[in-house]
Amino acid sequence: MIIVGLDMMGGDFAPLEAVKGAAAFFAENPLSVRMLLIGDKEKIKNVLLMHPLPEELIEIIHAPQVIEMHEHPTKALKEKPDSSIAIGFQLLATSKIEAFISAGNTGAMMVGALFTIKTIDGILRPTIGAYFPRENGSLGLLVDVGLNADCKPENLNQFALLGTIFATHILNIENPKAGLINLGEEEGKGNHLAQATFPLLKENKHLNFVGNIEGRDILLDKADVMVCDGFTGNVVLKLAESIYDLIKRRNIEDEHFERFNFETYGGVPVLGVAKPVIIGHGISSNVAFKNMIKTAVKMIEIDFTGKIKNSFIND
Amino acid sequence: MIIVGLDMMGGDFAPLEAVKGAAAFFAENPLSVRMLLIGDKEKIKNVLLMHPLPEELIEIIHAPQVIEMHEHPTKALKEKPDSSIAIGFQLLATSKIEAFISAGNTGAMMVGALFTIKTIDGILRPTIGAYFPRENGSLGLLVDVGLNADCKPENLNQFALLGTIFATHILNIENPKAGLINLGEEEGKGNHLAQATFPLLKENKHLNFVGNIEGRDILLDKADVMVCDGFTGNVVLKLAESIYDLIKRRNIEDEHFERFNFETYGGVPVLGVAKPVIIGHGISSNVAFKNMIKTAVKMIEIDFTGKIKNSFIND
Repeated sequence: MIIVGLDMMGGDFAPLEAVKGAAAFFAENPLSVRMLLIGDKEKIKNVLLMHPLPEELIEIIHAPQVIEMHEHPTKALKEKPDSSIAIGFQLLATSKIEAFISAGNTGAMMVGALFTIKTIDGILRPTIGAYFPRENGSLGLLVDVGLNADCKPENLNQFALLGTIFATHILNIENPKAGLINLGEEEGKGNHLAQATFPLLKENKHLNFVGNIEGRDILLDKADVMVCDGFTGNVVLKLAESIYDLIKRRNIEDEHFERFNFETYGGVPVLGVAKPVIIGHGISSNVAFKNMIKTAVKMIEIDFTGKIKNSFIND
Repeated sequence: MIIVGLDMMGGDFAPLEAVKGAAAFFAENPLSVRMLLIGDKEKIKNVLLMHPLPEELIEIIHAPQVIEMHEHPTKALKEKPDSSIAIGFQLLATSKIEAFISAGNTGAMMVGALFTIKTIDGILRPTIGAYFPRENGSLGLLVDVGLNADCKPENLNQFALLGTIFATHILNIENPKAGLINLGEEEGKGNHLAQATFPLLKENKHLNFVGNIEGRDILLDKADVMVCDGFTGNVVLKLAESIYDLIKRRNIEDEHFERFNFETYGGVPVLGVAKPVIIGHGISSNVAFKNMIKTAVKMIEIDFTGKIKNSFIND
């Protein structure tokens, strides 16, 4: 049986939303997964009184320490070996769990992932992406959204492939179109990075490269995997997130814009590390937690990291 | 009397929208300005039959050639000395007009500006910004939006000052707040460029620097002047423009989102060149042309380029 580790102390509403998310997952997928709930035992038990989970499928792993959102990642991990994040990565490294999910301190999650489970051989830098809703109901993927502020062309080329593998196997998009975010459509346009990246993507036989895409294409389905450096991607993601806030402030009801509520997506995996790690938004709702668990289970079921390893070995 | 030069051949609806824009300007500001209408005499005259302008305030300057939107800027300007853009810059360089406005080939406009009227002493690179509507009804300014794909920290520092002068005197914002677009709020965050730019902005005594702003702040009024490299700015601008298209496709009626129709703003001036030059969107409407003429007149009336010269001399 698949075993997933869930950080119960991450996010602004811990551990309530994580418990509710797990409950929603079990309601949809009974008997499919075992979950290790990592965090303060008393707090978790208190929430479980109101929101019970199937006892035979869960185990509470007590973690008396919590890494707060503002703490320095490396320092916090070192000084808090009994934090839910530190314990989660130990469980993952020792194969007690097959995937680790947290909506906690993003930096600490990244440092933990890089130092305990490491990147897949051949991958220069892991990346994190974000889903973008499209009007046809599907999701696009933007990579990188902030993990790598400065990038080299080789990084973007790898992000494009990692994103393509994710879009293919997790988003179920057949032969996903990969686009390079740029300031113009024509080949040769762009800053130095985009100009140097274009030929790499064009020549990468594992990609369905559709060329440059512009800012106006990001909310469309011109490309399924949209690649850029983490600086641009982070600004783009946060701008897109703010559209939802603006829509709400204007009291607009619209089915499509409802999907701009990024809180419900629950983050995408760290792409390029050796085991499934999913980092959620600090404001993750129970829907987000449910979706993160679903994604983690799917990644385990299809051996997602194995597929990445194969792609990079055969490259 | 102020004399403004208007390229009648620029934009997708030339010369109709330019004529209608001039008519709208004269309707609001009778007898205030003389306009030289630069372009194909017959075509302009034909449109004037349907949309007359006050004869004593206009003069048609015949330009038999047109630089098309897709042409290579430098090549086109060299090979088409009788184009409306080439003639416009000659008129500006020889002080026959005091400002030049075009919705034509952006690259040709930039090359023309740089080679015929040049940048103001001390300015490393001119920049172009874009207006961003805010919910309180005011406009923010984003610089650069694509002219300078790769930037140095000194460039961004100058863009911040140029934008501040524009926001102060043209947008009438008192002591405008300048913000550095970044992937996090804290000092020290960012890519190499943002990290190196922060201290320059912080120490620039001519700026009201409010620190880093994130993507989620761009549609708010956290900063009046938002500074970034032209690659990021271009992606952000085009993404913001596409929000309006999406709102329209969803049949949403909303007063604030109506102001996301960037076609109506008519472009902002090229900041840092020695005389007022305004480049409009190719799809500029008559409202955009009217607004560009208004901005040009205001720039002349308050000696905008003189104010920039003073700021950079006293720096």
